[in-house]
Amino acid sequence: MSRQPEVNPARLLRSVADFAAIGATPAGGVNRQALSVEDRAARRLLAERAMARGFGVFQDEAANLFLRREGRDTALPPLLIGSHLDSQPTGGRFDGALGTLSAFEALEALADAGIETDRAIEVVAFTNEEGSRFSPGCMGSMAFARAGSMSDWRGAQATDGALLADELAATLDALPQARVRPIGHPISAFVELHIEQGPILEREDVPIGVVTAVQGTKWLEVAFSGEAAHAGTTPLEFRKDPMGAAAAAIARIQDDIMPADPEARLTVGRIAAEPGSINVIPSRVSFTVDIRHPDAATLAAMEQRVREECEGAGERWGCRTAIQQRVDMAPGRFAPSVTAAIEETCRALGIRCRPMVSGAFHDALFVGRVAPAAMIFVPCRNGVSHNEAEFVSDEHIIAGARTLLGVALRLSAA
Amino acid sequence: MSRQPEVNPARLLRSVADFAAIGATPAGGVNRQALSVEDRAARRLLAERAMARGFGVFQDEAANLFLRREGRDTALPPLLIGSHLDSQPTGGRFDGALGTLSAFEALEALADAGIETDRAIEVVAFTNEEGSRFSPGCMGSMAFARAGSMSDWRGAQATDGALLADELAATLDALPQARVRPIGHPISAFVELHIEQGPILEREDVPIGVVTAVQGTKWLEVAFSGEAAHAGTTPLEFRKDPMGAAAAAIARIQDDIMPADPEARLTVGRIAAEPGSINVIPSRVSFTVDIRHPDAATLAAMEQRVREECEGAGERWGCRTAIQQRVDMAPGRFAPSVTAAIEETCRALGIRCRPMVSGAFHDALFVGRVAPAAMIFVPCRNGVSHNEAEFVSDEHIIAGARTLLGVALRLSAA
Repeated sequence: MSRQPEVNPARLLRSVADFAAIGATPAGGVNRQALSVEDRAARRLLAERAMARGFGVFQDEAANLFLRREGRDTALPPLLIGSHLDSQPTGGRFDGALGTLSAFEALEALADAGIETDRAIEVVAFTNEEGSRFSPGCMGSMAFARAGSMSDWRGAQATDGALLADELAATLDALPQARVRPIGHPISAFVELHIEQGPILEREDVPIGVVTAVQGTKWLEVAFSGEAAHAGTTPLEFRKDPMGAAAAAIARIQDDIMPADPEARLTVGRIAAEPGSINVIPSRVSFTVDIRHPDAATLAAMEQRVREECEGAGERWGCRTAIQQRVDMAPGRFAPSVTAAIEETCRALGIRCRPMVSGAFHDALFVGRVAPAAMIFVPCRNGVSHNEAEFVSDEHIIAGARTLLGVALRLSAA
Repeated sequence: MSRQPEVNPARLLRSVADFAAIGATPAGGVNRQALSVEDRAARRLLAERAMARGFGVFQDEAANLFLRREGRDTALPPLLIGSHLDSQPTGGRFDGALGTLSAFEALEALADAGIETDRAIEVVAFTNEEGSRFSPGCMGSMAFARAGSMSDWRGAQATDGALLADELAATLDALPQARVRPIGHPISAFVELHIEQGPILEREDVPIGVVTAVQGTKWLEVAFSGEAAHAGTTPLEFRKDPMGAAAAAIARIQDDIMPADPEARLTVGRIAAEPGSINVIPSRVSFTVDIRHPDAATLAAMEQRVREECEGAGERWGCRTAIQQRVDMAPGRFAPSVTAAIEETCRALGIRCRPMVSGAFHDALFVGRVAPAAMIFVPCRNGVSHNEAEFVSDEHIIAGARTLLGVALRLSAA
């Protein structure tokens, strides 16, 4: 006998608070870095709650943690929902945890209502999404999606001196109740709820973002080399001024390239001039460019535009131009079947939503390479994240969890 | 009985070499900072040579050193020619010394030829032009022109701990043969020969610059304050990006304001972004602007333009704009009577010359406030000065001295 499943708001909010207490910082944030004692404690708490509800508990060689509620047809690959439990060293209570706990709440709500889904639903907490203690981030989801292998990273060393191999083994050993399964088992789809980490939903007062893509990112380092000379005695026609080149190039990036495409994000976060004297034309000016776009071809074209603008500016100012690429991460498009399920759920629940692109990486970017995937964003105050001041309102927490539950219901149907 | 006076090239070049030996550095430069033991030795050598030629030797309370060759009418104020003998800590052999020694060569050439000028000619070595050991620079000429007083600076302390008052007294005491005279005695005019410290004469292959003005200088510090935000998650319309404002403002300064006026010099030598992360939109970007122009009204208008462009850029990017003025030095126009004498001399000697503006300060800027003054520039290699690599060719040394001698002849006529 089943009834309509409902999120239990009080239970979910208490759960968020319970997990925020593990690695809590005095300023109200969380320090629960990947594979740390605190991370293990959070994993244990979630596993215990799963066992108490009769859900299956599994982990793979990457210490990705799975909590499985069986479905009608055990042969069907399960629907996967969840996020991560690790945090930045001075992180907030919601980045990662909210998606994992909302997924667990969905599982509990289904159990409360006695719903039997066609396929099993599994909640996942991926290992080391943040990458702050051990680099790179998204280790667990990359390993799950075969975009990387834990064996490549076993030698990674934390700032505290710990080796990844040791901390991974200790984390796996700390949960002997979990059955070990091979990494990368088949799934039907993946849905990840996460805080937006940006300002759009809050400023537009929309409670749900339907994430259709994750931007690709390229990092460039641009350096113009000219000729240091006396500010007072050197006329314009004799100047080889790398500051002139840099200002012209950055102005083009900011005023021409970015506004031409509403999905484009171009940021110059670092700049330096040498020798750095008020009355000396610099000999060298260098800066960074962070370029993001959800479309790979457009991203490549934007990089090309940036290179051309820089080279043109360098030439006009008689400077040598050197450009180096530091990061090149391909964008990911999410599955229309999954984003449609999110939109239909919102419509059915009467919750406003809007499609959007994620500016940051998430586990779903990698899982999306092996299965249909998409994300649900909820607003966070002032777009602040990776910060102890990170905040999500109760109302938005509930709206997110209700949406995730509805999507899980839809996507768990065979 | 008199004949045509002629510069003695061998004597002048030897003199330059003799003085370059006082405070010589291993790299071929000179460390003869103001009021140091080396400065005193250079002053003594010049005074001894003057006495050997029967010239009068004077110093005033600023330790400005005067070497006087009497004229026909002792009641007429003398013509003043010269420069300074102090150097930067890693300075060259020509900055200052060349003007002083060329002036002394002119005096010797007149004596050699038995020329009696209508008015006396005095060679001057002004005290502490460089300002590297004791700030400010141009102390001696400022005191001479009543633009400042030694009593204001007596407490100035050198990086080596020495007090200006002590070093000044020791320098005056080291030349007991010199008669002390009141500071700021009347002169008919002042002519200063100096290295250009810029690239124009060398690149145009013109041996003599007729300096018609010294630029005024203003230093501004501009700071834009915006909002740090995630490079990936913050769309353009939500950005308060001080880097966008800075690039736009600097591009205007470099691409619009400077090219519009061939006499304008605008330099952005320093820039910094905070927090300085590749993937974070900066919260604050600050930079300096060095603005120079020979005309005071134009200089003021340029400062105003820079302020307006900065404020406009700040506004467009949603940033607070703060602008502080750090330096405000008025320009100086030289006397047409003196620049005409230089041009006529060059024409008579068949030496090519061109009018030009000095981008750097000189003693003549201040002396020009109390008497007709102008400067003669000679080319220096690659425009390099304040550097041990400073270099002037023998040919240009001779051309400069011949010009100065000719000008002294003209201007010493009653």
